[in-house]
Amino acid sequence: MSLSTLGIVKRSIDRADAGAVAALSRFGVATVHEAMGRIGLMDPNIRPIYKGAHLCGTVVTVLMQPGDNWMLHVAAEQIRPGDVVVAACTAESTDGFFGDLLATSFRARGAVGLVIDGGARDVEDLEEMGFPVFSRAIHAKGTVKATLGSVNVPVVCAGAIVHPGDVVIGDADGVVVVPAALAAATAEAAAKREANETAKRARLAAGELGLDMYQMREPLAKAGLRYID
Amino acid sequence: MSLSTLGIVKRSIDRADAGAVAALSRFGVATVHEAMGRIGLMDPNIRPIYKGAHLCGTVVTVLMQPGDNWMLHVAAEQIRPGDVVVAACTAESTDGFFGDLLATSFRARGAVGLVIDGGARDVEDLEEMGFPVFSRAIHAKGTVKATLGSVNVPVVCAGAIVHPGDVVIGDADGVVVVPAALAAATAEAAAKREANETAKRARLAAGELGLDMYQMREPLAKAGLRYID
Amino acid sequence: MSLSTLGIVKRSIDRADAGAVAALSRFGVATVHEAMGRIGLMDPNIRPIYKGAHLCGTVVTVLMQPGDNWMLHVAAEQIRPGDVVVAACTAESTDGFFGDLLATSFRARGAVGLVIDGGARDVEDLEEMGFPVFSRAIHAKGTVKATLGSVNVPVVCAGAIVHPGDVVIGDADGVVVVPAALAAATAEAAAKREANETAKRARLAAGELGLDMYQMREPLAKAGLRYID
Amino acid sequence: MSLSTLGIVKRSIDRADAGAVAALSRFGVATVHEAMGRIGLMDPNIRPIYKGAHLCGTVVTVLMQPGDNWMLHVAAEQIRPGDVVVAACTAESTDGFFGDLLATSFRARGAVGLVIDGGARDVEDLEEMGFPVFSRAIHAKGTVKATLGSVNVPVVCAGAIVHPGDVVIGDADGVVVVPAALAAATAEAAAKREANETAKRARLAAGELGLDMYQMREPLAKAGLRYID
Amino acid sequence: MSLSTLGIVKRSIDRADAGAVAALSRFGVATVHEAMGRIGLMDPNIRPIYKGAHLCGTVVTVLMQPGDNWMLHVAAEQIRPGDVVVAACTAESTDGFFGDLLATSFRARGAVGLVIDGGARDVEDLEEMGFPVFSRAIHAKGTVKATLGSVNVPVVCAGAIVHPGDVVIGDADGVVVVPAALAAATAEAAAKREANETAKRARLAAGELGLDMYQMREPLAKAGLRYID
Amino acid sequence: MSLSTLGIVKRSIDRADAGAVAALSRFGVATVHEAMGRIGLMDPNIRPIYKGAHLCGTVVTVLMQPGDNWMLHVAAEQIRPGDVVVAACTAESTDGFFGDLLATSFRARGAVGLVIDGGARDVEDLEEMGFPVFSRAIHAKGTVKATLGSVNVPVVCAGAIVHPGDVVIGDADGVVVVPAALAAATAEAAAKREANETAKRARLAAGELGLDMYQMREPLAKAGLRYID
Repeated sequence: MSLSTLGIVKRSIDRADAGAVAALSRFGVATVHEAMGRIGLMDPNIRPIYKGAHLCGTVVTVLMQPGDNWMLHVAAEQIRPGDVVVAACTAESTDGFFGDLLATSFRARGAVGLVIDGGARDVEDLEEMGFPVFSRAIHAKGTVKATLGSVNVPVVCAGAIVHPGDVVIGDADGVVVVPAALAAATAEAAAKREANETAKRARLAAGELGLDMYQMREPLAKAGLRYID
Repeated sequence: MSLSTLGIVKRSIDRADAGAVAALSRFGVATVHEAMGRIGLMDPNIRPIYKGAHLCGTVVTVLMQPGDNWMLHVAAEQIRPGDVVVAACTAESTDGFFGDLLATSFRARGAVGLVIDGGARDVEDLEEMGFPVFSRAIHAKGTVKATLGSVNVPVVCAGAIVHPGDVVIGDADGVVVVPAALAAATAEAAAKREANETAKRARLAAGELGLDMYQMREPLAKAGLRYID
Repeated sequence: MSLSTLGIVKRSIDRADAGAVAALSRFGVATVHEAMGRIGLMDPNIRPIYKGAHLCGTVVTVLMQPGDNWMLHVAAEQIRPGDVVVAACTAESTDGFFGDLLATSFRARGAVGLVIDGGARDVEDLEEMGFPVFSRAIHAKGTVKATLGSVNVPVVCAGAIVHPGDVVIGDADGVVVVPAALAAATAEAAAKREANETAKRARLAAGELGLDMYQMREPLAKAGLRYID
Repeated sequence: MSLSTLGIVKRSIDRADAGAVAALSRFGVATVHEAMGRIGLMDPNIRPIYKGAHLCGTVVTVLMQPGDNWMLHVAAEQIRPGDVVVAACTAESTDGFFGDLLATSFRARGAVGLVIDGGARDVEDLEEMGFPVFSRAIHAKGTVKATLGSVNVPVVCAGAIVHPGDVVIGDADGVVVVPAALAAATAEAAAKREANETAKRARLAAGELGLDMYQMREPLAKAGLRYID
Repeated sequence: MSLSTLGIVKRSIDRADAGAVAALSRFGVATVHEAMGRIGLMDPNIRPIYKGAHLCGTVVTVLMQPGDNWMLHVAAEQIRPGDVVVAACTAESTDGFFGDLLATSFRARGAVGLVIDGGARDVEDLEEMGFPVFSRAIHAKGTVKATLGSVNVPVVCAGAIVHPGDVVIGDADGVVVVPAALAAATAEAAAKREANETAKRARLAAGELGLDMYQMREPLAKAGLRYID
Repeated sequence: MSLSTLGIVKRSIDRADAGAVAALSRFGVATVHEAMGRIGLMDPNIRPIYKGAHLCGTVVTVLMQPGDNWMLHVAAEQIRPGDVVVAACTAESTDGFFGDLLATSFRARGAVGLVIDGGARDVEDLEEMGFPVFSRAIHAKGTVKATLGSVNVPVVCAGAIVHPGDVVIGDADGVVVVPAALAAATAEAAAKREANETAKRARLAAGELGLDMYQMREPLAKAGLRYID
């Protein structure tokens, strides 16, 4: 028995329900994160490589070695239409693991984006292609193809646990991961939250204070807030 | 007597003279910082959340607790037209304290922007609204409303001392704070500096060297500069 | 004999061949870096100050002291048309060493850009001028003119060795330095690489896998990769 | 059904076999990490707060909110002799969540240490007590007790997935997590590795080169290594 | 009238009451910070340069320019026995502003330590001298003496507002600043807190849970905490 | 002709004069750096892995790939008694490239230390061995042996240019590099500086102010320094 999860490609994964993914794609990252009870976010160093990049899809995970993008090539074969590749690394690395050639290959397989806890390059080409990438860095540094990692094992990517088949959503506010089993319920909760927010927005725009709308004055006074002149 | 400045909202503050604020709004952050003798800047990690964001206004200060945006709601009530909220935190935090709902409320009260030593979210909505925010991070992470901070006490925000009523100016070069009492004199000094720079710019564009225009050759030689071939 | 390389301005430098510079200007940073065997990059903290900034030219080096931009004025006189100023610092500093006045002077001398291991300011003006700058930070903080550094000595800028006369190229992927003596050969290797990539891109776009195109299946199996369901 | 893993305390957890924990306690972090196939490490920002701190025990996990140590008090009740508390946070925070009072309580319950993706304080007292703590920061900043997190749910702590009942080991090289089910096998593999290293150490000490001992000369030559004079 | 606070040395300052300073010197940084209501801390990047460094004294402030230690020499003359120099910088800088020569001079004037938002050097000598320094960095990099800053103006040092005459305390947990006017009251509050903690420590050591001692069970249940098996 | 400096081992290098190395070994890093005119320092993130680590020797350079320590094994063969290995990396990496086995081998070859722009592990063993290491990080993360770098080519290590045969010195203040050709002159300048400092130290200890000893009062007044009460 191997102790390690390295050197493995899992071919059959259970992807989140397509309807739930479609439903989730209508919401922003902040809304989905709130709908889940304020969990599931990657850390804020993961940023879109170009303005306006958005993605929502089912996850193919990759575990890479620092400075080595071999497993991204292995992952390409596992991509199904609508997938997003989520690439973690066994150690912090800002090298340019991903560029326009891999994006061409990923897109030909049906991928709708990449989230990578590492660096990307050819970012002008990627923007022109409209292939959304969320990464820790932008760096031209090339990588080798020498050491095994894995595909479709659970990974920690930028502080978030990600399982193959989960839903990942990225926009200007960051990246959130929704476990496959919770996708439908999260979409429903997000819809409720958004409806709720629309009503609140109108009241706030009309000049009502959050202090009154959320009934904060009493708890603030209880906590000891003092007004002075 | 309380030892702490926490748990206080000061309602009456002396805002900088409106004319001086208007005068300052015509200058960039670098010019104002120079006019003050090279002081008053926040640290360079405070960045506009969208390209083209500019702000200039009188300050309402907020002191928040990490991961807690309760005091932003309290601050909303203290906003007067033309104010900018400057939010510091008692400890480093990149959570998303501020989003489009609070922006809607702040705007309804007359606020013209936010500077926050923390994170913001809903940044696509904020850009669409044209509500300028300068922040340390962009992060979807939601916050709680549980612990008191203060409103309109002096704060340290990103390395700068800020008093309620001061003038704060933000553009692509960063954020600068002008004490209320110095606003008019600073605007005057900025105007002089800008006039001076226009003349210099023309001479430099015509090919004159700074070495000659600023009469640097002699002090450089005195300092020991050697030219070799 | 002086032990130090400080306090020196070298006037005569051997610039890379103009034809080679022109040839290199057609390629991106990632391609040139690969063509050189994956070396020559600056670290990824050096970023363009505005979207779309590109530069390619022969290097005039500057060694600055922290918080002091005196030597940038000295360097201006050494600029020849087509040069890029590459400014290193004797210690980490994010101050705003460079702004629109110096850019006006540099451009009047024929400079086509700046790479600086420090901060820049007036970035909206610089974008309007179309003067490309790659920097570690954007900061309004002004600098003094008090202490000697050097011009046209070898420097380490953001982790890369740079000699006067070398070719420096910057785009959205970062900054790469090509030694003057290797400029022509590098341009040739870059052209070959780009031709090669065009063919590969077409095959990948047609759905061929990198696993097959690069014949990776056998080495992956040898390394022990296991496929499971 | 709740979408969130917040607000939960799991009382019954399956701790790794005591014999395996004892066996693992004889090895260093680097050896255990290698024995697992080079996985399981926390990121290198987690450091012992005093020289000589070591820990090895079964994990009680805590998920805290930023600036809030309420759940550490909740966790105390779940500690059994030989446990190590591993505390993650829903967002990056360097506040001083833990000090000598909590250490006194944890020790009274049988805890043998703490790993925290946050800050600790009272570090001179903790050293005097001999209570080992591995943390991201040392900071006197106090925390509140206001918002729920969880105890004994799976967490991501400093980049590592940690389940309650796992084994965690900390020494001067960092912190490694061994899944409970792999504890015995990992201890066995670590013992083999250590035996193997003892033999190698002797040969290297006698002047034999790794180049020869590991038979690297041929693969290096194949890879193209050239020796020049 | 000058707009700037640069170029000034204030000779007469009101130092905190000597008895209050002596009283405060008996408490640790965490205790004092709590006694003040959880404010007054510098950020956690300010660390003692050697293990066991402690300081408590009245503040002489210095505002330095990056890479320039001229004002430390100016400050030496303003030191009175029992003072601690607190040195801020107009921009982030890790240069070695301070070493054993300045420490010799400061000590000869009666200084009992230094807090510096910058770098220190000669740290082995400083430890041998037993001269406590708290700094952002250790760096051998020398500095110049060329540009004016100020002495005994209010400064922001590592995120804390510091006025001349305040009390500053440093230990392994960091650095805290107590306004001169609050020194006596803070010492009193610290003494109460410490007495209170001694009692709590004994109860926790005897196995009582914080959950019970602090009566947390009810508020936790109200907040929705669920126990599962 | 190869464009790259990768894949090369230079066997014959010109080491700095042994007498000069011995002379330099008597001085601290700060003194040597000053003697050279304030250049030659590595950046301050390179720190000794244990208290009291010192090194001084002639340099064997290594250029490693991220996460790959193959070239350290290649370098071992090139070590001569008195050498210090200086290991740079083609990209930022904090992996544990070096541990006690390599230290055993390096020592058997006569090495007196290591400076590495990466991570080290087994640091308790290394301290017990008394083998001084200066590194960017401490991390248990293991590395592979798969990709070529070089030995004894010029490298940039932590911001400093290092040539094989140069002298490198490390102590608690950091690491400085002295070009081989300047070793003797630097040692001489360091001796003069140290003598000079001894005299100054005595005067400062006697209470003389730097203001008077360095005759700063006049230049300060000229610069505009104002004393106020």
